[in-house]
Amino acid sequence: MIYLDNSATTRPEKAVADKVYEMLTERFGNPSSFHRAGLDANAEIRGARNALADALSCDDGEIYFTSGGTEANNLAIFGAVQANRRKGRRIVTTEIEHESVLEAVRALELEGYEVVRLSPDGGGNISPEQIYGAVNADTILVSMMYVNNEVGSILPVTEIKKAVARAKAPALIHVDCVQAFGKIPVKPKKLGADLVTVTAHKIHGPKGVGALYIKKGARIVPRQYGGAQENKIRPGTEAAPLIAGFGTAVGLIPDLKEQSEKIKALNAYTKNALFKIDGLKFNSPENASDYILNVYVPTFMTSQTVVQHLSSEYGICVSSGSACAKGKKSHVLTAMKLSDSVTEHSIRISFSRFNTEKDADALFRALEETCKKYPR
Amino acid sequence: MIYLDNSATTRPEKAVADKVYEMLTERFGNPSSFHRAGLDANAEIRGARNALADALSCDDGEIYFTSGGTEANNLAIFGAVQANRRKGRRIVTTEIEHESVLEAVRALELEGYEVVRLSPDGGGNISPEQIYGAVNADTILVSMMYVNNEVGSILPVTEIKKAVARAKAPALIHVDCVQAFGKIPVKPKKLGADLVTVTAHKIHGPKGVGALYIKKGARIVPRQYGGAQENKIRPGTEAAPLIAGFGTAVGLIPDLKEQSEKIKALNAYTKNALFKIDGLKFNSPENASDYILNVYVPTFMTSQTVVQHLSSEYGICVSSGSACAKGKKSHVLTAMKLSDSVTEHSIRISFSRFNTEKDADALFRALEETCKKYPR
Repeated sequence: MIYLDNSATTRPEKAVADKVYEMLTERFGNPSSFHRAGLDANAEIRGARNALADALSCDDGEIYFTSGGTEANNLAIFGAVQANRRKGRRIVTTEIEHESVLEAVRALELEGYEVVRLSPDGGGNISPEQIYGAVNADTILVSMMYVNNEVGSILPVTEIKKAVARAKAPALIHVDCVQAFGKIPVKPKKLGADLVTVTAHKIHGPKGVGALYIKKGARIVPRQYGGAQENKIRPGTEAAPLIAGFGTAVGLIPDLKEQSEKIKALNAYTKNALFKIDGLKFNSPENASDYILNVYVPTFMTSQTVVQHLSSEYGICVSSGSACAKGKKSHVLTAMKLSDSVTEHSIRISFSRFNTEKDADALFRALEETCKKYPR
Repeated sequence: MIYLDNSATTRPEKAVADKVYEMLTERFGNPSSFHRAGLDANAEIRGARNALADALSCDDGEIYFTSGGTEANNLAIFGAVQANRRKGRRIVTTEIEHESVLEAVRALELEGYEVVRLSPDGGGNISPEQIYGAVNADTILVSMMYVNNEVGSILPVTEIKKAVARAKAPALIHVDCVQAFGKIPVKPKKLGADLVTVTAHKIHGPKGVGALYIKKGARIVPRQYGGAQENKIRPGTEAAPLIAGFGTAVGLIPDLKEQSEKIKALNAYTKNALFKIDGLKFNSPENASDYILNVYVPTFMTSQTVVQHLSSEYGICVSSGSACAKGKKSHVLTAMKLSDSVTEHSIRISFSRFNTEKDADALFRALEETCKKYPR
């Protein structure tokens, strides 16, 4: 199997799977228990929290484990808006956020909040000027992703803090870093963010665990009530095996500079190859993350059919967009004002540090053959 | 290690750990992806959903996976109240619920809902008459646990439906079956419940996954927004390894009749032994679940110290109450109107199918020695 769908999810590192197994078999105690079994599990969670805090250059106490990116995004958005609800009514976001942000913000809009959704240009880019134009003194939340999950465009999130300051807005700043973490430096302080979402399964960790960074002093209202876990911001028995596995995955993130160069080269190599296919077009902008390559494939098959065909005929895994938007027309490509004709025949190729030029070669051969056999 | 803290969490079955490992290493695709890796993961989730639906004698479509019992309880409570908010203002529950129910209901009370909390008798029992007396035509939710997690009392949850019908209440009925599932039959239809919470880590499955049964036709409002997973009631990339492990654990639940007899005998054996310790008293009522034995230990050490002492000196794991209420005075024993003097020196012993009379013998020797060396 040639796996080129790393923005949907990644293959866990063996050390991650081993750590999860060890937790399940040897350290199965409830981390809140005071006996040995509990303390052992608790120590693992502390270790994972340290690892993540190190990676984000923040304090341990600023890390709150969740069940994943969707929960972290929901907690950030509802939590910030509820905490700030007496200070203003405006929420600023973009049209190209992940479903968990779009839908959470939509629910708040139905409750009466004013939502400003910034439109991307044809390359999926948002400009700093758009942010400055949207944030006003009534803004209580700005929620924006760092790297777009479908086309890889990088959003100017470091401008948000300046825009908020200039508008004298009471806004909390939330940055969804799910596609950025482990690929480009994610330091909440440098980003100027109050709230940062990361998740394990995009960095070769397990599915079912993520985290929300909450800046010391930033107050949000919890979304879930219960015990004292995660400082009451996210109660419930900790998913200790997954959290420990997340910690292991964080510890295995390679030197980002080296890895970036490798992926940059692989992206260029892939583009060079695919470029030879007549009629194929790249939807990702030039300045996008090198991990994501969104391409229009000139075949009569629609995106989902291409994905299934590549899988069954060639053992190649790519995607037709966000896995969370299963089967729906891409809202990102639509926002980029690409024609339906392009949107409905585009696929997303996404790399990890485990991909090689051989994978790109196989993809090229498969797409070339597909476009010849089943042309548009 | 002698593990007698099975109401806090259980040791996962080896087959569960193996299944989680297999998912992490071989079936790591995103279950929403259309390629082979995704379909393989999706098939595992379907299998787990079937297993759970079989165990609960319900339809697959009535099972919604969550990150655990706390999330399922929160989803049930907030979801039901929000869906019914125009139909009434009263919520009926008890004083001895799990923290995730108590605190969720408390949050709704602060929003203006009327909350009726039934008080248990000295054995932790709630009577059917109390339920009939509390449910009125304004009641929109009744939330009650089946088996109490601290003393094992069994609540008359099958009476709720009749009480709701008699009062002509628009109420949805939520039963927290976390401590009942895998121990006594849990069939939502027979219980007359619209919403039922179960979790994996109390039945030798992994921590970090649970489920909410939602009766076909019962409408609740989601608590989390995002993709289309779990029919949009609980979006977010599925924790496929944990869900598959949950399914495995469900499949390994033994014949409940046989297991009940075994545990009944073990409970009686343990009681007989502990009875010999001068001054020791049982807080659990006679008619409690045999899995839980709450006892007052006549030593000057307080509950938490006893727990740590038994662990460090004898390798025995018990608890000082609910793990989720880490370190706090038991609200259950307090509601039972036991004196502080009893409440502060009580521990919970909780069995699983892996415990034997040898474990009970070791516990007896340890407690006897402890009470002699460190008497009250």
